[in-house]
Amino acid sequence: MSLTLTIKLHLASPPHFGLTHANKGTTCKTKTFSNTKVGAKPIYSATPLITPLCRVKPRVQCGGMVIKSSLIEPDGGALVDLVVPECVRSSKIVEAEILPKVQLTRIDLEWVHVVGEGWASPLRGFMREDEYLQSLHFNSLRVKGGSVVNMSLPIVLAIDDETKGRVESATHVALVGPDGDYVAILRSIEIYKHSKEERIARTWGTTAPGLPYVEEVITPAGNWLIGGDLEVIKPIKYNDGLDNYRLSPKQLRNEFDKRQADAVFAFQLRNPVHNGHALLMNDTRKRLLDMGYKNPILLLHPLGGFTKADDVPLDVRMEQHSKVLEDGILDPETTIVAIFPSPMHYAGPTEVQWHAKARINAGANFYIVGRDPAGMGHPTEKRDLYDPDHGKKVLSMAPGLEKLNILPFRVAAYDTKENKMAFFDPTRAQDFLFISGTKMRAYAKSGENPPDGFMCPSGWKVLVKYYESLQAEEASQQPVLSST
Amino acid sequence: MSLTLTIKLHLASPPHFGLTHANKGTTCKTKTFSNTKVGAKPIYSATPLITPLCRVKPRVQCGGMVIKSSLIEPDGGALVDLVVPECVRSSKIVEAEILPKVQLTRIDLEWVHVVGEGWASPLRGFMREDEYLQSLHFNSLRVKGGSVVNMSLPIVLAIDDETKGRVESATHVALVGPDGDYVAILRSIEIYKHSKEERIARTWGTTAPGLPYVEEVITPAGNWLIGGDLEVIKPIKYNDGLDNYRLSPKQLRNEFDKRQADAVFAFQLRNPVHNGHALLMNDTRKRLLDMGYKNPILLLHPLGGFTKADDVPLDVRMEQHSKVLEDGILDPETTIVAIFPSPMHYAGPTEVQWHAKARINAGANFYIVGRDPAGMGHPTEKRDLYDPDHGKKVLSMAPGLEKLNILPFRVAAYDTKENKMAFFDPTRAQDFLFISGTKMRAYAKSGENPPDGFMCPSGWKVLVKYYESLQAEEASQQPVLSST
Repeated sequence: MSLTLTIKLHLASPPHFGLTHANKGTTCKTKTFSNTKVGAKPIYSATPLITPLCRVKPRVQCGGMVIKSSLIEPDGGALVDLVVPECVRSSKIVEAEILPKVQLTRIDLEWVHVVGEGWASPLRGFMREDEYLQSLHFNSLRVKGGSVVNMSLPIVLAIDDETKGRVESATHVALVGPDGDYVAILRSIEIYKHSKEERIARTWGTTAPGLPYVEEVITPAGNWLIGGDLEVIKPIKYNDGLDNYRLSPKQLRNEFDKRQADAVFAFQLRNPVHNGHALLMNDTRKRLLDMGYKNPILLLHPLGGFTKADDVPLDVRMEQHSKVLEDGILDPETTIVAIFPSPMHYAGPTEVQWHAKARINAGANFYIVGRDPAGMGHPTEKRDLYDPDHGKKVLSMAPGLEKLNILPFRVAAYDTKENKMAFFDPTRAQDFLFISGTKMRAYAKSGENPPDGFMCPSGWKVLVKYYESLQAEEASQQPVLSST
Repeated sequence: MSLTLTIKLHLASPPHFGLTHANKGTTCKTKTFSNTKVGAKPIYSATPLITPLCRVKPRVQCGGMVIKSSLIEPDGGALVDLVVPECVRSSKIVEAEILPKVQLTRIDLEWVHVVGEGWASPLRGFMREDEYLQSLHFNSLRVKGGSVVNMSLPIVLAIDDETKGRVESATHVALVGPDGDYVAILRSIEIYKHSKEERIARTWGTTAPGLPYVEEVITPAGNWLIGGDLEVIKPIKYNDGLDNYRLSPKQLRNEFDKRQADAVFAFQLRNPVHNGHALLMNDTRKRLLDMGYKNPILLLHPLGGFTKADDVPLDVRMEQHSKVLEDGILDPETTIVAIFPSPMHYAGPTEVQWHAKARINAGANFYIVGRDPAGMGHPTEKRDLYDPDHGKKVLSMAPGLEKLNILPFRVAAYDTKENKMAFFDPTRAQDFLFISGTKMRAYAKSGENPPDGFMCPSGWKVLVKYYESLQAEEASQQPVLSST
């Protein structure tokens, strides 16, 4: 099965949300919308996953100003927003036209999206060598004033020898999207060696062949990295019917503020939600209420960038998630579903830090971490690539994440006595059935139903339909044996 | 050539230097010597490398008390010293006899030496998993109070399945040296998986076969690591004629204080000293004087633990260094030569942090770093394993090393116009001759003299003699062809 995620740039003018921009020297005096206007033109209206905006009176009202959030502070103190104001967009395109060009892949574009919206705050572009080395060696960056922010994955842009030769004498370059449009300008560039082997070894803790991100992104990439400050020419859109769910950290923060959240707990996932997950999320909310929080909001935050071929594709997952909310397994009143635009590395303990750090920037002060986060099987050995406990251990000790509350995942399994997903009780272990992802896929592929109570039936149907379509596709691709 | 370093445990009672010990619950009331007594019984008298102790009046006098150093603070605030006081030694041996035993290799013993003397302060033993993971992922440890100390290499003790089965139910274990004597007790043990592939990948940034430390230590090691707090039963001695040079961090700090050093600059090396090194060290002293320091002291600090087979062995290097001081190339009045007992990893940017951090604990506040520190050729590709500039870049950004002044190495080469080693002048590049280690070894092996002024003649003779002995040894090991 190949990756079905399609990425297209939206060339038509997207709505402007009146957000202020941190770009130096590019302030606009026109077209500043008030937040009321944002509310009046909800971007989420096409979806049942998020309760309508402005239902709860915003705590902070302002006209044309950034809402001052009382949520957890973004890394570096201020949320980075590198998308240039609409008023200067055309002049940036004119400038891009005369700059040397660097061609982006679809996954490069995902990173422009991620960095441009501030998920990696305070990072303001693709890493220069100092940042790359700190990320590789220390999983963190030292920022002005001496404090440290977490940054466990190198966020870099690779170029080949030909491109290097063409752009290295320039100060700024234009980044060209996969569809040929100008995506961004990269300023004050720095070109340095792409130490692929070292990058892979230090990020994944292995250099074994078969790591999905390595094979898809790093191996085919050029031998140079180009760092610099990003100016994103317009918001990145994919036109896949899911753009409304791609809320930026700023939009999420506004939403949390409007809902008067006093705690935000994030759940990162790249799999369908079963009732064990739901139990965990509902239990977390209960624990937060017990701790004295009045209105904890769940950020159910599926990863939307590159995933490996045998993961369930984003559109199927989103449909499945919507059923979980429609069925009331999760409460839409206290849940926001949005897409995290990052590509997946499958780098276990190193990557889970990135997943958590990015959610701080989106306003989450609690992060749920499970068994073997961002892990996978070892590509060449019959074992997990990472010790399943290392993810949460590393996360709990990671530099720059001290302000985040880590909530370890309690193990849920199917309780055959109660016929529902429940927290595993070791005193009656024999009553519990562990349904792994592989097992779940096997059920869905065979059309067999999992035990009652494993997943809401409408969500389960989404999966069955997906695997049926896959099998139909595979069958149609079987080579026809020529008769002899 | 095989490694010629021999390690033997000194079973006879070594002199006691009246140092106080940090071991909990093991204070001695007897046999506390004053520092004057240490001076009266100099351990360095057999060597011309260090000027006699007490030549300069100690700044701080005390009787039976630890000298309060005004030097840079050790990591964690207090220098760790895990060697138990002599008065409790015999009772520790009695205890060790009844504990489950863990057999040490020669290199394990070097690590007991390193940790026991406080080079790795505030580390108090072999790493438990929390420390191991922090070291692997962040090159640093968070300590009580939230501050961070550098710790780039995992300092761990591996055991095999059989040993694990034998000791895992115990709380404490006895560590047995290669010669069968009780070396230490490891308390409150924790056993966890030895994730060899991950350890290698994250430490070296490669998993290519042929890394010396990996082949010598990690590959043959067991699949488990055992962490715990060390109590070292007696100071580690090697009885190779060089123990007098193995000054502990505490002894070095005392020595710096006695010399009234107001700056200590450390030079880590595992090679013979040529006049380019000497130029650099002398120039550094001059720069420190220009900066206003009154008495900068050089710590010339050859690494004394495991080195790869084609490095010059420690005893030869020490003899060569002694000639450099005898010949006045370096000034004995302002130089201390001592042996750094750590084994070598050849892990480039990761290891140079360890080299620097350990010297902070010994009192150095300046650290000289050159091109490609702790680097080597890639074991399977025709290139340096590390970018030669990464070492000093990583060092300058490393967490926990902020208090250390990093002095980048200026490139010295042989000036064919002046017939001496000089700082490379790019405006007349053609006048300079770069004599690499390989080239130097080729000269020494062939008996050919390097250009005048490359190295002091008496030091050069030491190397020639060594390579001659090697060749003689090789010749004697040639298989004799039987006549037909």
